[in-house]
Amino acid sequence: MPKISDERRTERRDQILEGARRCFAEHGYEGATVVRLEREIGLSRGAIFNYFPSKEDLFVELAVRDNARMSEVWISDGLAAVVRAVVELDPAWLSVYLELFRRVRNDPGFRGRIEERQKEFAPANRARIEEAQRNGEFRDDIAPKDLGTFVNLVLNGLALQRAGDDELPSTELVLSLLDDAIGPRVRRGTPSRTRA
Amino acid sequence: MPKISDERRTERRDQILEGARRCFAEHGYEGATVVRLEREIGLSRGAIFNYFPSKEDLFVELAVRDNARMSEVWISDGLAAVVRAVVELDPAWLSVYLELFRRVRNDPGFRGRIEERQKEFAPANRARIEEAQRNGEFRDDIAPKDLGTFVNLVLNGLALQRAGDDELPSTELVLSLLDDAIGPRVRRGTPSRTRA
Repeated sequence: MPKISDERRTERRDQILEGARRCFAEHGYEGATVVRLEREIGLSRGAIFNYFPSKEDLFVELAVRDNARMSEVWISDGLAAVVRAVVELDPAWLSVYLELFRRVRNDPGFRGRIEERQKEFAPANRARIEEAQRNGEFRDDIAPKDLGTFVNLVLNGLALQRAGDDELPSTELVLSLLDDAIGPRVRRGTPSRTRA
Repeated sequence: MPKISDERRTERRDQILEGARRCFAEHGYEGATVVRLEREIGLSRGAIFNYFPSKEDLFVELAVRDNARMSEVWISDGLAAVVRAVVELDPAWLSVYLELFRRVRNDPGFRGRIEERQKEFAPANRARIEEAQRNGEFRDDIAPKDLGTFVNLVLNGLALQRAGDDELPSTELVLSLLDDAIGPRVRRGTPSRTRA
């Protein structure tokens, strides 16, 4: 009965990944030892590594899931929803990403694996930007790629401030200023306050 | 002759800090052992720790120097110059900052020391924002504090993408979109392209 088996496998994968996320967030990447992963996930190392052969695999899969979720939010609900989702990310988990920046810089194999998986979302994200330009959500006098990198810049800045428990600008302010930067040009004449 | 002694002390401090910065950038914070610090700085541990009693002191002082430099650039040359300065920061050194985010989150003493020193620049930075609002560089319908946190957000996003060797949006594009977001409202009617 492959159907049930697949369902069970999916459940088990979810259990492993969510436990691993909690463990990384609490102890950091280096501090998430096999013993701690076993305890947090509630499975033996044999069971865990049957699904994910290494800690690196666990991390890459978690990063990809975050990307997938942000991409889904963006595609179905738009930029304001993504900004709100980033602001609500767990700061402790975000700081695990930051811990791994040196590794990403210094280990081309690790970097390559993450980039390879991130590419999965690029076409749909790009299509959504083009749609936003057509329907007047975004200005259309800037290339979609450039709009995308600027939005990423702002989201990364939010994530970084969130990871450091720094004071965040209000979400409404960020959305209002982002709209002034990348919203449709036809609304330029109106003072931004009335558009919030 | 305290004059010469002071000069020598300043030179020595600079030598230690620049060597420590190179050492952190190359080996990461944890990897910057005392032996490696001695080698990179060219002084014995006794001489180094005579100026900075701990590795943490070295890092805090380097972070404060970066802040001081950015503050100086911003005050004397304005926002465009700061954006260019951030884009030119050493990615390897930036990733050391990121490594320490977990520590900053989890160690209130460490966090407190950094925040205490960062406060030194706040009044001058705030005064510069108010001046930029008066002279028409920035819009004046948003509180200086909110403008500051948004600009920080964008600078943090740039620093994060730079640390990860990610593709950066062109500096001109960032400056143009930032100007659309926080530039003076009176220019809203003109299409942004012509204002670059």
